[in-house]
Amino acid sequence: ASAWKRAHGHKATAKLDLSGIYPPIATPFTAREDVDYQKLEENLQKYAKIPFKGLVVQGSNGEYPYLTEEEQVEVVRTVRRSLPADKLLMAGSGCESTRATVQLTEKMAAAGADAVLVVTPCFYKGKMDARALVQHFTKVADSSPVPVVLYNVPANTGLELPLDAVVHLSQHPNIVGLKDSGGDITRIGLIVHKTKTQDFQVLAGSAGFLMAAYCVGAVGGVCALANVLGGELCELERLCVSGRWEEARLLQQRLIEPNAAVTRKLGVPALKQAMQWFGYHGGACRSPLQPLTDAETQQLRGEFSSNGWL
Amino acid sequence: ASAWKRAHGHKATAKLDLSGIYPPIATPFTAREDVDYQKLEENLQKYAKIPFKGLVVQGSNGEYPYLTEEEQVEVVRTVRRSLPADKLLMAGSGCESTRATVQLTEKMAAAGADAVLVVTPCFYKGKMDARALVQHFTKVADSSPVPVVLYNVPANTGLELPLDAVVHLSQHPNIVGLKDSGGDITRIGLIVHKTKTQDFQVLAGSAGFLMAAYCVGAVGGVCALANVLGGELCELERLCVSGRWEEARLLQQRLIEPNAAVTRKLGVPALKQAMQWFGYHGGACRSPLQPLTDAETQQLRGEFSSNGWL
Amino acid sequence: ASAWKRAHGHKATAKLDLSGIYPPIATPFTAREDVDYQKLEENLQKYAKIPFKGLVVQGSNGEYPYLTEEEQVEVVRTVRRSLPADKLLMAGSGCESTRATVQLTEKMAAAGADAVLVVTPCFYKGKMDARALVQHFTKVADSSPVPVVLYNVPANTGLELPLDAVVHLSQHPNIVGLKDSGGDITRIGLIVHKTKTQDFQVLAGSAGFLMAAYCVGAVGGVCALANVLGGELCELERLCVSGRWEEARLLQQRLIEPNAAVTRKLGVPALKQAMQWFGYHGGACRSPLQPLTDAETQQLRGEFSSNGWL
Amino acid sequence: ASAWKRAHGHKATAKLDLSGIYPPIATPFTAREDVDYQKLEENLQKYAKIPFKGLVVQGSNGEYPYLTEEEQVEVVRTVRRSLPADKLLMAGSGCESTRATVQLTEKMAAAGADAVLVVTPCFYKGKMDARALVQHFTKVADSSPVPVVLYNVPANTGLELPLDAVVHLSQHPNIVGLKDSGGDITRIGLIVHKTKTQDFQVLAGSAGFLMAAYCVGAVGGVCALANVLGGELCELERLCVSGRWEEARLLQQRLIEPNAAVTRKLGVPALKQAMQWFGYHGGACRSPLQPLTDAETQQLRGEFSSNGWL
Repeated sequence: ASAWKRAHGHKATAKLDLSGIYPPIATPFTAREDVDYQKLEENLQKYAKIPFKGLVVQGSNGEYPYLTEEEQVEVVRTVRRSLPADKLLMAGSGCESTRATVQLTEKMAAAGADAVLVVTPCFYKGKMDARALVQHFTKVADSSPVPVVLYNVPANTGLELPLDAVVHLSQHPNIVGLKDSGGDITRIGLIVHKTKTQDFQVLAGSAGFLMAAYCVGAVGGVCALANVLGGELCELERLCVSGRWEEARLLQQRLIEPNAAVTRKLGVPALKQAMQWFGYHGGACRSPLQPLTDAETQQLRGEFSSNGWL
Repeated sequence: ASAWKRAHGHKATAKLDLSGIYPPIATPFTAREDVDYQKLEENLQKYAKIPFKGLVVQGSNGEYPYLTEEEQVEVVRTVRRSLPADKLLMAGSGCESTRATVQLTEKMAAAGADAVLVVTPCFYKGKMDARALVQHFTKVADSSPVPVVLYNVPANTGLELPLDAVVHLSQHPNIVGLKDSGGDITRIGLIVHKTKTQDFQVLAGSAGFLMAAYCVGAVGGVCALANVLGGELCELERLCVSGRWEEARLLQQRLIEPNAAVTRKLGVPALKQAMQWFGYHGGACRSPLQPLTDAETQQLRGEFSSNGWL
Repeated sequence: ASAWKRAHGHKATAKLDLSGIYPPIATPFTAREDVDYQKLEENLQKYAKIPFKGLVVQGSNGEYPYLTEEEQVEVVRTVRRSLPADKLLMAGSGCESTRATVQLTEKMAAAGADAVLVVTPCFYKGKMDARALVQHFTKVADSSPVPVVLYNVPANTGLELPLDAVVHLSQHPNIVGLKDSGGDITRIGLIVHKTKTQDFQVLAGSAGFLMAAYCVGAVGGVCALANVLGGELCELERLCVSGRWEEARLLQQRLIEPNAAVTRKLGVPALKQAMQWFGYHGGACRSPLQPLTDAETQQLRGEFSSNGWL
Repeated sequence: ASAWKRAHGHKATAKLDLSGIYPPIATPFTAREDVDYQKLEENLQKYAKIPFKGLVVQGSNGEYPYLTEEEQVEVVRTVRRSLPADKLLMAGSGCESTRATVQLTEKMAAAGADAVLVVTPCFYKGKMDARALVQHFTKVADSSPVPVVLYNVPANTGLELPLDAVVHLSQHPNIVGLKDSGGDITRIGLIVHKTKTQDFQVLAGSAGFLMAAYCVGAVGGVCALANVLGGELCELERLCVSGRWEEARLLQQRLIEPNAAVTRKLGVPALKQAMQWFGYHGGACRSPLQPLTDAETQQLRGEFSSNGWL
């Protein structure tokens, strides 16, 4: 029997409530590319004033593939110390192999994660079919001491977690939701529809389609842009949840271009540059991620200023 | 001076109101693969009872690339005869070359089209950049006697009409809107945002994301599924337009799988099979489109029945 | 019984020998974008001095999707008049529908084509599986008065003619070969291997992989670059056929960049520009294909001059 | 000054000769998914009888993304102990971050690697442009105690190492070659052409296009299939190198389908299954890689037997 099964048996337990907005926090580095825990804590203090549901640590925007396992865990431990108990800490723990994912999941729980976000393994993408992925996530969820959130991010992994696999996995009592960064709103609507008997929660993985995701039944979002415009995204959440769709639309529209700039177009270096402009510590990325060129910096600024944010 | 310019000069004219639901009608064939105008008219009589805004003739679901130019025009003429004057007839007139598109556009207008739907030329996809496409659509719109609707359908063309090109073209007084079948809701939201001073209208190109498209600012939809479940799609429209989002969501969710089945998954042969089940004339496609296999027919039926439509 | 079957019955007939180099000729236009038959004939006179196996008319480089059917046939008729009887005229006759392809094939044969080159229909790419394509090409070959050459050009069609379909079709007595422009040398080698009992001939569809294609068993090439550097490509053929691989390699290497420039990178407008530099009539393309920008023209020139051709 | 520069200064040094065939060795596991060093050594003893140039350890076929860093290094150490001194040991050392790659490279050299094979980092694929990759590989090569071989494997990474970056990096004195698994023979020919003044060596990354790669100037191959049909691949090498192209072609053709089966089609589990049939230890993969289904096993056997290998 797995760790999870030993602990929970066949009891029906209420699933962790994921609803709300999360910034997938960036990792500040020193000039020598070491993790800058001091600056990280200063960012956390600023985030504490924003009505986030919690934080995602070791998502793609945290440059987790560039951190050692020790650093990955230590950052989670640091965040946990700062974070009020009522805020949810969701930690990335996905590795390529199942056994490594199982182990890192345990370490993340021990370091204080309330839930883990497990990305699809993707190196052997031709072999990562529904069968392989269902087995992987099932083993991880079976043994995880904390609830598991699936993480689909095809732009990085080159792989779409098949819808049938999501529906199958939604029945696992220790799998509570999905962060979907693909942006296919039809897929999101269908996942909500086909998991509606499972208390399964879908989070939009990007601010560009947050309102549309709420519209079709998502319960929140993990949005890179929340590192920069966190209050605005929480406001968008509030408008959607309270059915004020007209106001929501106007706000949503102004967020699409800044969001695209710090994600798909210019990536993490742009996110960290924009954080600087808005009073957070951003700074350089680890190599091989390069700093923005001057032209890119100007383009980035334009995307914020033309939408009235700078 | 072009036909359009001659007719309209510099007058500010109200743009044609496109808002509402349109079936892109299928083309029935006889056993010998000739156009069956009799069955077409019988379908039209049934559609007349549904509160559609109008009909799209010679869209992808009409197998227009399989019709001769004479057939394309004759079908439009036939539809025009049946169609009440208050219903909009939008006719596909996009060809690969600009000159052919200009000529077919004129023929479609003469045959009774109220507007033309012009697909992106795509054979030389590597060369169809914003510059080429802006020039193409501008020339077509300059000379068209009727308003032009842009048509982006990357699943068929392998090409995305660049967002900047859409924004540029939205300023043309004879280009009134865009049918976008790509399903990228972020893009749709951004197009609405960046064309808001232009009275430019966006139509969702598929029923799968119709509600989300309304949510971010689209004004209607051209939906293959409307050939089968036309009343239901008009009901979804009504719910969205009147702000009854909770009810809309439940209806939308039940339409996603049937819609995927008759479009992305199984295509026009499935659309025509489903039409048969719902009392319309569907029948075989022209070669090389193949009839469904038995397994596909069963799968198709399942997508409708599991969602309560059969 | 089909035209082909009526004519040939069950006799074993020697398949047409396709081996050698073919330019897929460009179509010159007047300033008003009409076909310029005079300039076409002047080009043909120059090509007559090069040891080509024949010419391809209405291939992608001939802008065939931009010509009316009447123009397509008239260009073939014009070429036939100029072309010595011992040179092969291969005419493109592929349309989207099977019936249109059958009809155009007959017209091309009547206009003097020795063989037809039939591209994969591609608009409904999701439905163009092996079953549909085998049926399409079989019907066309059954009725064609002249031998059929399959044409796979995924960069334009977004579709790969499945290998199993090629192997199946290679057994048809009226299908004599394949022009493959995909450039997947493993696929080409495998097609040669799996059709070796069929007297089936593979032509490389681009000069960039011509030598490698000969190496794995192709018998010739239909190469856009042959419009510009025809003698050099025939020389490369001679070196490959006579086993002088070291010399062939040096020549092949100098052709890759010019070839990429006039195909994948800059397309037909670049091909026509380069033709001008080498004494042929090139000129403008039909809209929406755009003329090269100055920067592109310079880049194009660089690809030729850095390899010692200008 | 970097480690490499300190050691080598500005001296012109002969680059390591990479020419020949390498199996990228598989990693046997116990029933508990631990590395089975005993079985590994037994495989090595069998490989010792085949005229390989050397072995690649921690390539994609070794499931390196599923091994811990300690295991990755320990496997290299084990291989080094068994391997005759005149055989080359090339060890994979590519990680996502530059600093991790630098460190693992040093460990691999200390464990006995003669050269390192450094895959393109790929998680942030949208940002891995020529600038980022040139900087990454330059830093790694600057500090590496042993020569560096670039590794391009788009099927796994979703990323093509840009040709311009390869040409630029070929000038680095500690970068000696490229393993290219993409199979684009035009690209391989062009890389050979554009690096010919640099003593830069290209290795085919798959047996399917090995002969064609030799034909355009490659010097060897790192081929998964060499784990199974090692002698045959060395024979193919001998035929290509000695200019016996007709014999080479017949052998090459019979290798394409078995090769596709153990790579693109069915992957590492198929490679390990085929190894079993040919007297090597293969066995199960680490999760989430799944064992073949019965149907897949039969398909695999068919690809070998229909080509006369079983």
